Amino acid sequence: MSSCPEEWKYDRDLGALREAEIVSKGLVCDQISRAQSGHLGTALGCSAIGAALFGRLLRFNPREPRWINRDRFVLSCGHASAFLYAWLHLAGYNLALEDLKKFRQARSKTPGHPEFGVTEGVECTTGPLGQGVANAVGFAIGGKKSEALFNTNAHKIFDYRVACLCGDGCLQEGIAAEACSLAGHLGLDNLTLIYDRNSVTIDGRLARSQSEDVEKRFAAYGFEIETIDGTNLKQIIAAYGKLVPSKNGRPKMLIADTIIGDGIDEVAGTNRAHGEAGIKFIRSAKAKLGLPNIDFFVPHGVKEFFENQLRKKVSEYNFWCHTFDAWSEKNPELHKILLKEHDPAVELGNFKCENPERKISTRAANGEIMQFLAGRDPLMVTGSADLFSSTKNYLEGCTDFSANDRNGRNIEFGVREHAMGAIGNGLCYDDIFRPSCATFLVFSDYMRAAIRLAAMANLHTLYLFTHDSIAVGQDGPTHQPVETLASLRCMPNLYVIRPADYEELAGAWLAYYANKNSPFAFILSRQDLPILHKNGTERRGVLRGAYVVRWEKSKLRCIAIATGSEVALALEGAKIFDDVRVVSMPCMELFDEQEDDFKELILPGACKNRVAIEAGVAMPWYKYVGIGGKCMCVHGFGFSGSADDLCVAKGLTVNNLVEQLSSFA
Amino acid sequence: MSSCPEEWKYDRDLGALREAEIVSKGLVCDQISRAQSGHLGTALGCSAIGAALFGRLLRFNPREPRWINRDRFVLSCGHASAFLYAWLHLAGYNLALEDLKKFRQARSKTPGHPEFGVTEGVECTTGPLGQGVANAVGFAIGGKKSEALFNTNAHKIFDYRVACLCGDGCLQEGIAAEACSLAGHLGLDNLTLIYDRNSVTIDGRLARSQSEDVEKRFAAYGFEIETIDGTNLKQIIAAYGKLVPSKNGRPKMLIADTIIGDGIDEVAGTNRAHGEAGIKFIRSAKAKLGLPNIDFFVPHGVKEFFENQLRKKVSEYNFWCHTFDAWSEKNPELHKILLKEHDPAVELGNFKCENPERKISTRAANGEIMQFLAGRDPLMVTGSADLFSSTKNYLEGCTDFSANDRNGRNIEFGVREHAMGAIGNGLCYDDIFRPSCATFLVFSDYMRAAIRLAAMANLHTLYLFTHDSIAVGQDGPTHQPVETLASLRCMPNLYVIRPADYEELAGAWLAYYANKNSPFAFILSRQDLPILHKNGTERRGVLRGAYVVRWEKSKLRCIAIATGSEVALALEGAKIFDDVRVVSMPCMELFDEQEDDFKELILPGACKNRVAIEAGVAMPWYKYVGIGGKCMCVHGFGFSGSADDLCVAKGLTVNNLVEQLSSFA
Repeated sequence: MSSCPEEWKYDRDLGALREAEIVSKGLVCDQISRAQSGHLGTALGCSAIGAALFGRLLRFNPREPRWINRDRFVLSCGHASAFLYAWLHLAGYNLALEDLKKFRQARSKTPGHPEFGVTEGVECTTGPLGQGVANAVGFAIGGKKSEALFNTNAHKIFDYRVACLCGDGCLQEGIAAEACSLAGHLGLDNLTLIYDRNSVTIDGRLARSQSEDVEKRFAAYGFEIETIDGTNLKQIIAAYGKLVPSKNGRPKMLIADTIIGDGIDEVAGTNRAHGEAGIKFIRSAKAKLGLPNIDFFVPHGVKEFFENQLRKKVSEYNFWCHTFDAWSEKNPELHKILLKEHDPAVELGNFKCENPERKISTRAANGEIMQFLAGRDPLMVTGSADLFSSTKNYLEGCTDFSANDRNGRNIEFGVREHAMGAIGNGLCYDDIFRPSCATFLVFSDYMRAAIRLAAMANLHTLYLFTHDSIAVGQDGPTHQPVETLASLRCMPNLYVIRPADYEELAGAWLAYYANKNSPFAFILSRQDLPILHKNGTERRGVLRGAYVVRWEKSKLRCIAIATGSEVALALEGAKIFDDVRVVSMPCMELFDEQEDDFKELILPGACKNRVAIEAGVAMPWYKYVGIGGKCMCVHGFGFSGSADDLCVAKGLTVNNLVEQLSSFA
Repeated sequence: MSSCPEEWKYDRDLGALREAEIVSKGLVCDQISRAQSGHLGTALGCSAIGAALFGRLLRFNPREPRWINRDRFVLSCGHASAFLYAWLHLAGYNLALEDLKKFRQARSKTPGHPEFGVTEGVECTTGPLGQGVANAVGFAIGGKKSEALFNTNAHKIFDYRVACLCGDGCLQEGIAAEACSLAGHLGLDNLTLIYDRNSVTIDGRLARSQSEDVEKRFAAYGFEIETIDGTNLKQIIAAYGKLVPSKNGRPKMLIADTIIGDGIDEVAGTNRAHGEAGIKFIRSAKAKLGLPNIDFFVPHGVKEFFENQLRKKVSEYNFWCHTFDAWSEKNPELHKILLKEHDPAVELGNFKCENPERKISTRAANGEIMQFLAGRDPLMVTGSADLFSSTKNYLEGCTDFSANDRNGRNIEFGVREHAMGAIGNGLCYDDIFRPSCATFLVFSDYMRAAIRLAAMANLHTLYLFTHDSIAVGQDGPTHQPVETLASLRCMPNLYVIRPADYEELAGAWLAYYANKNSPFAFILSRQDLPILHKNGTERRGVLRGAYVVRWEKSKLRCIAIATGSEVALALEGAKIFDDVRVVSMPCMELFDEQEDDFKELILPGACKNRVAIEAGVAMPWYKYVGIGGKCMCVHGFGFSGSADDLCVAKGLTVNNLVEQLSSFA
């Protein structure tokens, strides 16, 4: 091993950390070399940061990786996964050298980018740049909210901090800009961004695409900033120690100047270091680092250091457990809340729609249901991208979450949809609160990359998307979704529910509470709709995705299938026919999961005369109507005009449906 | 009319402008009141800015609204459309008071949000916040490039400037942050953001969601900034005159403090002013403004002022025309280029794939075609979101577009996909260059909102999306598109082409050149693929969307339909069957446009035994295979592993296809 600097001789731990730093470089090289695939650059460049975090600065317990008061570490630059796996292994997590040897192999614990749920100690799925930064803001909001809701004067069970390692690429992304502006506004002093400033991106020097003064930009957001040599362990530790504990109402940023690919001289400091190009120099690089020519080498001293640390970590955890037990005893109600012992779905069973004769938009109906639930579920948190007044999900009687009010349950995200989505994900990763967030359906496009990660990571995020069709009217095609339903439905593991009315909306909430491993999108109307309960809508019908809302009275000749606002249209168009069945299909994903018998019951294979009615593009419907069927859907973009104009122009009328239904033999 | 300030008595124009400002407020009120729908807030608050821009500062000719050297004015806060319509009318554009009276009505020239192609003088379709800011950066890049390519020492035919009016909401969006950081980097001193800082958003005071120092943030990007009272005409004109002409290599920002809903005291300065809530106070507001109780009132003095201005504008334009004519005469080749007289598609006809025996990824093949075309089309410009080395679209022999090199034809967008998409749109609105931009297919999610606007506005943007399937392999599910193809195909007016090889790729370029009113997305493989020309792939087959790549040799029993990398798989799986037809369908949108006879020829209705093979979700395929058909597609997200592991796990194998084909009766 390379010798320690002179001044460290008196700090044995620093010496061991320095050794661990070099060992981690070896583990990074060996993982990527064995896989012949991966990203060496950041994984090597941040080794000192890794040593500081996992060998000294972070609070965690590898034996209880989901300890609720652990510090959260987010690797926003997820391509540096080999870095994280090396440190999780060294720090004593359930990740053996054998796992590291399977880096990037199918069904390993060490996939190409960190995946939540696959590897203990991985806080969130990252890779698409910028997302982790916004996730970290979500973790930090969750921390502040947890402190406010659960801590008592006698017992503090929450005081964790959030550290997020991110690179130049992450900070170029707009989502990171949105999230950091909000972090400054919300005064999240429990958040520290560690900015790995290696000034190199895939295509070359950062200077090819960027000249901004990043420090000044983050100062403008309200961050407190320290700039250090990110390859210098002592500087990292000193700066972190100075910056992070301060409860000054400002998020922190540690600008760490590093060298991409540090340790492989042939590529270090250039964009060739980013990927695999350094692999062929690994043997000599390891020799220069003082590492033996042994793959996956961890010397006794480093093992011993982390074993000692583990004992301290476990004892720190045990100490916290005493506090927690005392807190639990004194605060049984809070304890129940934290453990989510109460299922709000039970309450929802008692929910009845008042005055079912009125017309009401499903966005407004959803607001009423949320008011009902918010009073019964203290973990419900919701937010809107500056559209509370339109999305109708503001929890009345609750306050805004702000720098001065950590118990606020409404989050004003500002016009920052993408960050909203990823911050919602951050809250969901932590699994303490039940977050939802809202905007117009058409603007789900802005946050799509975040929704995808929620679906991939099995997060229980709830998206409230209002203004769900061309019936938006005068605002015109920029605000009228037509393809958006299809674009959400094609995403794996996302449940898209478009309720026809109050009853189905209550069913949508039941579905949401019943499946905690998937995100849900509720698709809600802007315009008022009749409440159809007396015409056959069913709350529990939603749970199986589709059901018959009107049975045929004579031999079945054709089936009309509709969702949301078009269910009323379908019922109206079908009512003059005895031989037409009307199916409401609020959730295709749930219907697809049912047994064949049930599907046959709802949509008998023998009946090929089918028409789908939906104010969106036809693509999702061919699966149910087949080549011989018809789609009364929206072709092309809408236009600015009245909702009636649009429905007539796009053929979404009762007359057209009657015509279509009549045309079947 | 309200009286002029004392000091204006000596500047008759300023007096007229002040009058016009108030008249514009009346026109805004009347449009929105008549429609009973619209956004009063910004439209009223920015009236002084409108007067300054349309009555003095902007260069334009209402008689030639597409004059190539006009200043470009982008209304990023598109909800303030009534503002733009009022000023376009007053300034003499082809927009009558009768048009203003049809505000937000179907088929009017005055839709709810400004729509490109619908209204002369509307430079781009805006509404989704932040997009216009990035469009404006695209216009500014186009301006700099046009100057560099077309101006000569003797004749300057391009020196236009770009002004973009944007609000608090626009600047909260990440896309604006990305675009402005890039604008600073590129030194776009021909760009001016006019920041309508009314400090109110839909949900209330901006302070509910924002505390950042916007001025400092934009200074960090490299902007030159002036802060003014945005309700004070003289200040606006003075600041614009001071800031904008400077060619100091820095984009400009005019921070204009305004009052939302200015003029309707009951709502002014509050979020109630944003929408229609002020309508009921309009009569008294107009009276207080000194306007008569006449709808759509434009007094003689204001008309006269703008008639005079029009004469000056036309004469300025005529002067430019002399320069242009002289330039044309001296530079016939440049003139031909500017007029796009040369169709690169003709050149493409001569393009032949060299060495058709090799295997090559379609991303690399596309790179080769682009090199070929770039030499023959000086208008080709391309960019990448820090992935040139992977997306392979860098134009070799050309330079990077930069602050020091305006002739560069490669744009390094940095890791800023969303801005890249919208900047590409900005370049397309101008219709001088032929821009394309590139990233991984999975990251098209980041730029989806921009793609949607390209489709809606009939822009000829080209998206190059590489790494097109689970075959990406080890990078794992975050980098493996599965639903992305479907999510793009459901978008109206976007042509999604997934070529199987070189030949089809050349066909994709033919299709792109043949339709200038739609954006195109080329979906390109990361992995090498065989060149299938000798197995039947056809260049011109792409133009009809689908064609038979292998005819059945006996009576048709079933049809295999595939795209891209799966065409080779389909051919391989089908080859042991005499009665199987293989159809390559590189572009569903083009196929859907064909006549029924052609469709019947390719996919005979009588043959219901169909299987679709594609490394993506099945949703788009039911339309072609029907309920009885099969989809050999990808279910669920992928995982990190080798491409082979993934294809086996997801059933994308020759053996599986043989099994499926055998299973049909």
